[in-house]
Amino acid sequence: MKNSRRGAVDPFIVMDVMEAARQAEDAGRHIIHMEVGQPGTPAPAAARDALAQAMQSDALGYTVALGLPALRARIARLYGDWYDVDLDPARVVVTPGSSGGFILAFSALFDARDRVVLGAPGYPSYRQILKAMDLVPVEVQTAPENRLQPVPSDLEGLDYDGLMVASPANPTGTMLDRDAMAALIETCHARGATFLSDEIYHGIEYDKKAVTALQISDDVCVINSFSKYFSMTGWRVGWLVVPPAQVRQVERLAQNMFICAPHAAQVAALAAMDAPEELRANMDVYRANRALMLEGLPKAGFDRIAPPDGAFYVYADVSHLTDDSRAFAAEILDKAGVAVTPGLDFDPERGAGTLRFSYARSTEDIREGLARLAAFMAAR
Amino acid sequence: MKNSRRGAVDPFIVMDVMEAARQAEDAGRHIIHMEVGQPGTPAPAAARDALAQAMQSDALGYTVALGLPALRARIARLYGDWYDVDLDPARVVVTPGSSGGFILAFSALFDARDRVVLGAPGYPSYRQILKAMDLVPVEVQTAPENRLQPVPSDLEGLDYDGLMVASPANPTGTMLDRDAMAALIETCHARGATFLSDEIYHGIEYDKKAVTALQISDDVCVINSFSKYFSMTGWRVGWLVVPPAQVRQVERLAQNMFICAPHAAQVAALAAMDAPEELRANMDVYRANRALMLEGLPKAGFDRIAPPDGAFYVYADVSHLTDDSRAFAAEILDKAGVAVTPGLDFDPERGAGTLRFSYARSTEDIREGLARLAAFMAAR
Repeated sequence: MKNSRRGAVDPFIVMDVMEAARQAEDAGRHIIHMEVGQPGTPAPAAARDALAQAMQSDALGYTVALGLPALRARIARLYGDWYDVDLDPARVVVTPGSSGGFILAFSALFDARDRVVLGAPGYPSYRQILKAMDLVPVEVQTAPENRLQPVPSDLEGLDYDGLMVASPANPTGTMLDRDAMAALIETCHARGATFLSDEIYHGIEYDKKAVTALQISDDVCVINSFSKYFSMTGWRVGWLVVPPAQVRQVERLAQNMFICAPHAAQVAALAAMDAPEELRANMDVYRANRALMLEGLPKAGFDRIAPPDGAFYVYADVSHLTDDSRAFAAEILDKAGVAVTPGLDFDPERGAGTLRFSYARSTEDIREGLARLAAFMAAR
Repeated sequence: MKNSRRGAVDPFIVMDVMEAARQAEDAGRHIIHMEVGQPGTPAPAAARDALAQAMQSDALGYTVALGLPALRARIARLYGDWYDVDLDPARVVVTPGSSGGFILAFSALFDARDRVVLGAPGYPSYRQILKAMDLVPVEVQTAPENRLQPVPSDLEGLDYDGLMVASPANPTGTMLDRDAMAALIETCHARGATFLSDEIYHGIEYDKKAVTALQISDDVCVINSFSKYFSMTGWRVGWLVVPPAQVRQVERLAQNMFICAPHAAQVAALAAMDAPEELRANMDVYRANRALMLEGLPKAGFDRIAPPDGAFYVYADVSHLTDDSRAFAAEILDKAGVAVTPGLDFDPERGAGTLRFSYARSTEDIREGLARLAAFMAAR
């Protein structure tokens, strides 16, 4: 048996960090996890209660491919509540996580060898999934003065069939405001390219509300998930919003490629959407953590950072400290007992000079982690 | 935004039947569901209890991409228990259902335009997923004398890179015995083609145990799931077994394409594997239903059937009764109040003359359905 060429995607470098952290813990060391991109909190209690109930009374067999009608309707209502957008539930497709959403969207909207622009730094799986599905990721180097988000001039002279943006972005936490998003959508539409907006960190915002692409145009594909704001990473449930003309194609693909998103997760997700107190409490933690990070990281010597608009990451330029972020992360783990992510996963070109710090965990951990980082840098 | 060409997969014809059945029920009619390909039973109580417990104590975040180590080890042990095969847990990959297994396997093992042989009739999503992933399904018409399973002579003169078999098969319930499976594996290996074995109906067998491809060779890809025997369709959890040289490639793809299978489903699946009484009780129902079907269908006039070795389907040749199985299924639904699946989904060529009857539901339903079918045929 042979491995395919398209399946030979890059390994995640952060996996080496996580494995080294695990080994250190096995050896009895205490490690602070600033490498992990997920909340430490479980799904809201209301979500878990709803599932516990459903398991008593429902066989939880397949749902229809587009998802439980009540969940699709509730998601559509979120667009009214959050953005004042009137969204037809028929355009909402429940997916097995945003991961399933990417697979569905890329299958439904692109043919083999189509070219999709991504901003670097960005979520590494975009380019790996594209490659595995025989699409061509076209990475543009975003500019610090644009807060590491793409702008129309980055696309000039490029040949492409689609553009994927993320706002708030991973690893930077920066957002596209309405004008910036509109300019990118317009640039895409002018050449007949498909605009995809990854909105997985929506809800986790600090100073202002994130803009959804649906506030600007209906001719976009939005990808979202219950993983982050709703604290349901391991449940694998998310959603797409597509134009009416794409629903049938996406539905047929979903029937064949996934049958449905996990029924149990759909039940839990529906209840999670009506657990505002618990979600607000999670946000209070992120907000406190962010304030600590924005104060503590510069004090420790990581002063080349931009305040994140959303998500739970700080992306730091450490090119004045190292030209090998992988070795630097290993050194921080070894000497400070703090696991951080080297930028190479997000930006193969410039990532040797960057680190991502996550503040998704408890405030106590953040405080301790910052103290360790300060001591480490002082001794360096 | 435009739809892709590769994403323009065929609709399921059975969906029309299901929609018509739903409308009939909405109009107050009582319908017997012989179209549905899933158990009516929930996950075993032990599985649901285990999850209810875990939801109290565990955040159920992402698992590692290959799946919970305890689940992989327990699956490996199943191969010892069921087949006397000594399987390294490192070769087991937990997937989001067998659907996720197909996507992973096709990405890891095939490049765009590779050709994969399928026997017709067969599970329709094989060809749709292949098409959506830019692979070429090559359908061979299997022979009734081979119980509608492919044999090496069916492959002569064909150009192909892989062969997918299913045993017990959907829609026929027929199995490949060890010699038949070995001959196909040998034929594949002789030309360097990849052999994939869909074993999703293993455990649901009647007269003899199904053969796993792993009893014959390690150089095969096995796809399985908790959906059928373990009665966990909506949970979306299954597994692959791949050769050692494929594990890393599959792992990297799984990290990017799925992150992990649903954590909650993995917890439930692990406990389901140690609920033998409940699973045995489910099998008793299938066995009783099968006996009723094998007696009742011929009596009703559906006498061109082969006894299924496994699964919960009877595939009937009705070409002497109709040349339009779709219209015939609609007539049966309308006049008999029994929903059945026209063969066209499974075999676009010969399926106009076949029907699939499922006996996955309660014995009471089967008895009533057969009585209705007999009355319908007598009045026809």
